[in-house]
Amino acid sequence: MRSEEWFEEAVEFKKGVSTALQVQKKLHSEKSKYQQIDVYETVAFGKMFSLDGVIMVTEADEFCYHEMISHPALCTHPNPRSVLIVGAGDGGVVREVLKHPEVEGIELCEIDEKVIEISKKFFPHVSKDLGNPKVKIVVQDAIEYIKEKHKEYDVIIVDSTDPVGPAEGLFKRDFFINCEKALKDEGILVTQAESFFYDPQFISGIFEKTRGIFPVMKYYYTMIPTYASGTIGFTFCSKKHDPEKDLHEERARKLQDLKYYSTGIHRAAFVMPVFTKKFFK
Amino acid sequence: MRSEEWFEEAVEFKKGVSTALQVQKKLHSEKSKYQQIDVYETVAFGKMFSLDGVIMVTEADEFCYHEMISHPALCTHPNPRSVLIVGAGDGGVVREVLKHPEVEGIELCEIDEKVIEISKKFFPHVSKDLGNPKVKIVVQDAIEYIKEKHKEYDVIIVDSTDPVGPAEGLFKRDFFINCEKALKDEGILVTQAESFFYDPQFISGIFEKTRGIFPVMKYYYTMIPTYASGTIGFTFCSKKHDPEKDLHEERARKLQDLKYYSTGIHRAAFVMPVFTKKFFK
Repeated sequence: MRSEEWFEEAVEFKKGVSTALQVQKKLHSEKSKYQQIDVYETVAFGKMFSLDGVIMVTEADEFCYHEMISHPALCTHPNPRSVLIVGAGDGGVVREVLKHPEVEGIELCEIDEKVIEISKKFFPHVSKDLGNPKVKIVVQDAIEYIKEKHKEYDVIIVDSTDPVGPAEGLFKRDFFINCEKALKDEGILVTQAESFFYDPQFISGIFEKTRGIFPVMKYYYTMIPTYASGTIGFTFCSKKHDPEKDLHEERARKLQDLKYYSTGIHRAAFVMPVFTKKFFK
Repeated sequence: MRSEEWFEEAVEFKKGVSTALQVQKKLHSEKSKYQQIDVYETVAFGKMFSLDGVIMVTEADEFCYHEMISHPALCTHPNPRSVLIVGAGDGGVVREVLKHPEVEGIELCEIDEKVIEISKKFFPHVSKDLGNPKVKIVVQDAIEYIKEKHKEYDVIIVDSTDPVGPAEGLFKRDFFINCEKALKDEGILVTQAESFFYDPQFISGIFEKTRGIFPVMKYYYTMIPTYASGTIGFTFCSKKHDPEKDLHEERARKLQDLKYYSTGIHRAAFVMPVFTKKFFK
């Protein structure tokens, strides 16, 4: 049917649909200790990398994801100084978190150092702040790393792959309990939580199995064309502060170099289509 | 690469990306006077029909589009009694507009009667209200039909295909001028207006070339997985009422059988990601 080369993503949660991206060139391919990593030059979205066949980052739309996994938590916390980022070896979340001048230290806990290498080589605009002196990179399984931590962080951001393979444990109740322990008293945890169009059972499951750990637990979303269904959501778990009531408008408005996030988007992102309401009980 | 049969959409505005849907069976295929019409049973979204190879309706997610092209205008107008729907031969917009008890009469102006036939045959849940006594079906080119109208409608909804082929004229300045004339003094026009991710130049063009026709002109969006990029937008053109200030909350809350729209979604849908702001000048 096609003479050109196309990358086709197989969606784990929704069989029978895929996003197909035309490829100009395959730039890199390797199997790391944890996963298959491929880098492509695409026709429509610039460079793209996939893990185990699932699109992770494209140059054209990564900002939709990286801004939205970062700023809602950072702009809700009254004074986010210490941040733990889980996964996110590409550096995109680090870049966004560093836009907050209050942040004094970031720990990036990435299980697969190959992701960091690949991003440094092929995605300089995403990885550009990985060498910032505020950033400490820990190559380790976050599931183990977090067990040793007690009231150390203001914000934890879990930028994981889908809940199969190495990331599976990041979606378990124990991990949420350990994150709660690792957070200070005003702490906030944000995790990647899939699409409400394709993964309703997964999202319901997360809300059911983590019930009672955090007093505030909400779901919000970003739009992003290259992710399955065109949208992806996040859980917002908080010990004290409510993202819809406690947004620090002035700090949010001072942020520079944003392409997606604004105070209006912050509020709108928590408003969900009617059919999803039953997932969040 | 694949042994199964897949439908692959070619996106007019963004080369090098497509939504691929696995097909169980092709149910129908014909070339009407105006366009190629195909109906498929898909694996992930139930029955789907395409016009000229572009996905129009899937059973699974049509509500995202049909609710959002209809209710924002109907809930902003103080008393929408007379409604013109352009295109939309599938009946989805008619079904939504009839949820408003104020509406006394609907004219549906569809150029291609084959679309109506196909929807009645394969999409009973979408077309179910086409026989309602409030509905008058006119099989005609709306570009001509609207020229004869003067202050007849409270709301006009243009549910068009992409601006190539038969729908091209629905995106021209003259058509917007004629819609303005066809609307009463409190009238509102809503038109399908493509994705801000994929068609920024098209959207900028619409805003530039229609400047000054309507005192209020805004853009809003819905999420919908099977449309290119996962989102599609609408222009909201109004003689008097502002969709963000003049929402009739109580009427909106009384609407039944909604899966997407709510008063919260109404407000959130007008909040656009930062990068899009430059398109709407």
